Amino acid sequence: MTYTLYYSPGSASLAVHWMLIELGVPFEAKLVSIDAGAQKSPEYLRVNPTGRIPTLIVDGKAHGESAGLLMLLAERHPEKKFAPSPGAPGRADWLEMMIFLANTVLPAKRDWFYAQTDGDPADADAVKALARRRIEGAWDRLDAHLADGRTYIMGSELTAADFLATMVMRWSRNMPRPATAWKNLAPYIHRMRSRPAFIEVNDREGLTDWRN
Amino acid sequence: MTYTLYYSPGSASLAVHWMLIELGVPFEAKLVSIDAGAQKSPEYLRVNPTGRIPTLIVDGKAHGESAGLLMLLAERHPEKKFAPSPGAPGRADWLEMMIFLANTVLPAKRDWFYAQTDGDPADADAVKALARRRIEGAWDRLDAHLADGRTYIMGSELTAADFLATMVMRWSRNMPRPATAWKNLAPYIHRMRSRPAFIEVNDREGLTDWRN
Ligand SMILES: N[C@@H](CCC(=O)N[C@@H](CS)C(=O)NCC(=O)O)C(=O)O
Ligand SMILES: N[C@@H](CCC(=O)N[C@@H](CS)C(=O)NCC(=O)O)C(=O)O
Repeated sequence: MTYTLYYSPGSASLAVHWMLIELGVPFEAKLVSIDAGAQKSPEYLRVNPTGRIPTLIVDGKAHGESAGLLMLLAERHPEKKFAPSPGAPGRADWLEMMIFLANTVLPAKRDWFYAQTDGDPADADAVKALARRRIEGAWDRLDAHLADGRTYIMGSELTAADFLATMVMRWSRNMPRPATAWKNLAPYIHRMRSRPAFIEVNDREGLTDWRN
Repeated sequence: MTYTLYYSPGSASLAVHWMLIELGVPFEAKLVSIDAGAQKSPEYLRVNPTGRIPTLIVDGKAHGESAGLLMLLAERHPEKKFAPSPGAPGRADWLEMMIFLANTVLPAKRDWFYAQTDGDPADADAVKALARRRIEGAWDRLDAHLADGRTYIMGSELTAADFLATMVMRWSRNMPRPATAWKNLAPYIHRMRSRPAFIEVNDREGLTDWRN
C-alpha cells in the first residue's frame, strides 16, 4: 500500500501530504511546482489531465480532489480513526462537514486566488468580493461551531476534517481578515499547528510562514 | 430507519428525494417552498439554521448538504449498491466524482442562480460569466467521460453520482447551452429521465418540464 503524492508547496496537496504523515504510511512525494508552472507540463498532464494539484496514485491509478482523497485515506486506514466509521454516531456530521468545506470554502478559495485566470480579468474584483464574503461567512460558521470549547472540528476526536479545515484557514493568512482573527479559530489553529506532523509537513514543503 | 426530507420542488433536495424513492425506504417529505420564501421562516430555521434546502432528518438529527446526504444514504443502505463499497475497485473513482460534482458544479450553479442575492447585485454579471464557463467546462469533462459508451457515470453500475449529476444537469435547462446540447450527455440524460423513480419524483414535486 504505497502511495505517490504529486504536490506543490502550500497548495491543495498540503492536507493530503499532512494526513499521509499523520497516518505513518509509506509514500513518495513528487514536487510539481506551481510557481514554476510545472502542473501544465506534458509530464504532469499525462498523470493528471486536469493540470490540478494534488494527484495521489492509489493502487496504480491517479486520483485528484483533495477532499475526496482525505475521505479515501481515512477509510483505507480505519485503525487511525480519522473518520467516524459508517454507522457510528457522528458519521453524518462528518460527511456534512467534509462536503461543506469542499463545496463552500474550497471553491471560494479558488475564486479568490484564480479569478484573474479562471475567468475574464475584468471580472476578477467582482468574483473576489463574493468569494471573500463566502469565506468570511464560513469562518463565522466554523467559529460558532467551535464556541462550545471542542478541541477538534468534530469534537474530541481528530479527523480528516481538521486537516482540510486547517489547510483552507492557512490560505486566508494574507486576506484582509485572516481566519486567525476569529476568536475561536485562533486557538484551534494554534493547536493544529503544534502537531508534530504539521510541523513536519511544513519543513518538508519548505513553508516558513503561518507557523507557531 | 425512517427519514424526514425537507424539500422544495426542483431544488438541491431533488437528488435526495429521488434517491430515497430508488432506495424504497420509508420517509416523510415536507414541503418548504423556496418560491414562497419558506426556507427563511422561523419554523424552518429552527430545523436548519442555514436556511438552505435540503435538510434530512437522520436518527432524529438534521443534516444538510445534498452531496453528503447522498453519500450517507448510500452507505446506510449498502445492499442497494449505490456506491462501490470501501476497498472495492471503483471506490476512489466514485469519491473523486462525488467531490468533483460537489465542489465544481454545485457551487457554480449557486453562483449562476444566486449571484444577485449572495453578493453585490452590481457584480452579478461578472460572477455569472465565470460560473457559466465553469459549468460548461464540467459538461465538457463529463461528456468526455461518457464518450466510451458507458451507461452510468461510474460505468455499468448506477450510483448516487448519477442522481447528483442528473440534478445539476437539469438545472442547466434554461442556460444558454443546456447540458442536453452535449453529444454524450443527451442520451445519458434521456436514460436517467426514463427511470421510474425519476418520473415518480417529478410527479410528487409537481415538475413538468425537462421530462422525456
Ligand atoms: N478541487 C481541487 C482543487 C485543486 C486546485 O485548484 N489546486 C490548485 C492549487 S491549490 C492548482 O492546481 N492550481 C494550479 C492551476 O490551476 O494551474 C482539490 O481540492 O483538489
Ligand atoms: N451545498 C448545498 C446547497 C444548498 C442550496 O444552495 N440550496 C438552495 C436551493 S437549490 C437553497 O436553499 N436556496 C434558498 C436560499 O438560499 O435562500 C447543498 O448541496 O445542499
